[in-house]
Amino acid sequence: MPSSPVLFLAVPAADGTTTFTPADALAPQLRVDDLGATRGDGVFESVAVVGGTPQGLAHHLDRFARSAALLDLPAPDTAAWADAVHRAAAAHEPRPELLAKLVLTRGVEGSGVPTGWVHVFPGADHTEQRTAGIDVLALERAYPSDVVVRAPWLLQGAKTLSYALNTAALRYARAHGAHDVVFVSTDGDVLEGPNSTVLARFADRWVTPPPELGILDGTTQARAFAWARGRGDRTEVARLGVDDLKTADALWLLSSGRLSAPVRSLDGVPRPTDAALQAELLHHLLTVAD
Amino acid sequence: MPSSPVLFLAVPAADGTTTFTPADALAPQLRVDDLGATRGDGVFESVAVVGGTPQGLAHHLDRFARSAALLDLPAPDTAAWADAVHRAAAAHEPRPELLAKLVLTRGVEGSGVPTGWVHVFPGADHTEQRTAGIDVLALERAYPSDVVVRAPWLLQGAKTLSYALNTAALRYARAHGAHDVVFVSTDGDVLEGPNSTVLARFADRWVTPPPELGILDGTTQARAFAWARGRGDRTEVARLGVDDLKTADALWLLSSGRLSAPVRSLDGVPRPTDAALQAELLHHLLTVAD
Repeated sequence: MPSSPVLFLAVPAADGTTTFTPADALAPQLRVDDLGATRGDGVFESVAVVGGTPQGLAHHLDRFARSAALLDLPAPDTAAWADAVHRAAAAHEPRPELLAKLVLTRGVEGSGVPTGWVHVFPGADHTEQRTAGIDVLALERAYPSDVVVRAPWLLQGAKTLSYALNTAALRYARAHGAHDVVFVSTDGDVLEGPNSTVLARFADRWVTPPPELGILDGTTQARAFAWARGRGDRTEVARLGVDDLKTADALWLLSSGRLSAPVRSLDGVPRPTDAALQAELLHHLLTVAD
Repeated sequence: MPSSPVLFLAVPAADGTTTFTPADALAPQLRVDDLGATRGDGVFESVAVVGGTPQGLAHHLDRFARSAALLDLPAPDTAAWADAVHRAAAAHEPRPELLAKLVLTRGVEGSGVPTGWVHVFPGADHTEQRTAGIDVLALERAYPSDVVVRAPWLLQGAKTLSYALNTAALRYARAHGAHDVVFVSTDGDVLEGPNSTVLARFADRWVTPPPELGILDGTTQARAFAWARGRGDRTEVARLGVDDLKTADALWLLSSGRLSAPVRSLDGVPRPTDAALQAELLHHLLTVAD
């Protein structure tokens, strides 16, 4: 029997606080003139729930609030959202892994009242990609690396609902025999995946590109860095060129659903993977609550 | 008494045809896991309905189908959508101007069934901006002019639901004392507004930038070109630099809701407007069914 997804709808109060109320995830809940649906005008987070525990929740909520601020949305009532995530996760039939999606939209056009919800459901089965690795294409994002400074109105660095190009890039990769994508700036900076963070290992040094490039600060990457430091390695937030990806000892794409996926080829060229390290990293992400 | 918006929901059949059924526009109609709401993964059109008649509908439906194809969405049943727009417009309480919004999303995640609707409602009152004109900022879109060729996965030229940056650019303009925006490429090409098409007049020559730049072919602009040719002027689809905007005899931003808005300043510098021509153009857009 498939388990039922759990949905809590946000009910904002005039004083800036929010309460959450259970609702039917399989029934319609949004109006067609909600700006989330007509303009992708809102922000979201996807939180891994492992063994019933939301992972990196404080980091996710911090990023959720920063995204909301970049879109001039009302500041989310972080304590209420955290509570809702815990309650929704607890209300779901137990599973080793679940996803909690937090969404805040600008609401019904003209209402001035944001729409929000927490949706908990089983994610896809990522066993194959976690174990066998993924084939990745480097694709142009067509933005310069200083896009955030030059053009803040483009919302780079905010996790918005306007993700059509991210899903289009993934479809492009699949149509070309790959699983995933690493975006590259016009001036050659490695950016991020359409829904993942790039992690490169050079000997005992673990590197991820900086948010200043207009990319998200990865929540799973932060957890991976904590693990790497725990084993005595060095971690570094630094710019990477595509050539750096070709000389790294190993590459991963990190995200809340799939957690860690080893990159086994880049643009069709095989890349070394490290099964022992992947097992150790994935074990950390699947067991250590933080 | 405010009039009630009219909503028709698409019911796709297995053979590729679609029927439409009336629904309550003020009640929830979309699930929270509709990819239109969670990913901005869908396409739309906004059609002016003037005196009960949808304007430029064939052009809108053609663009709707092209946007859907760029997103690998199923081809819309164009005849059924046209019929639904006519029926929804007729079902609305008569108004001089209405808007019909056509939306097609990838549907509930995992369902493989797209979600679609036609929503007819009164638009905003644009009298002030049509008459007094608008103050416009030129803002970087941060893409090169050949983005479509270089990076088709970025979906430039498709009218997608992922419009958060378009609304953000408009908020930026308003926060800086302007009404609207003209986007410019990194290599200096004038592109389009966040939800409008640029029209420049040089003596008896009317110019708009080409869709090859990754912009939409404007439906209102096409109607304006028909009007210009009807009065014996020349029309041209050609690249424009920001300097060209400074030497044009007059500038407009064109869109389905506001129709034609004269640009009275660009980046704070006053620009000449032509009240007689604006009145003539707007009269055409408000009276000639095409």
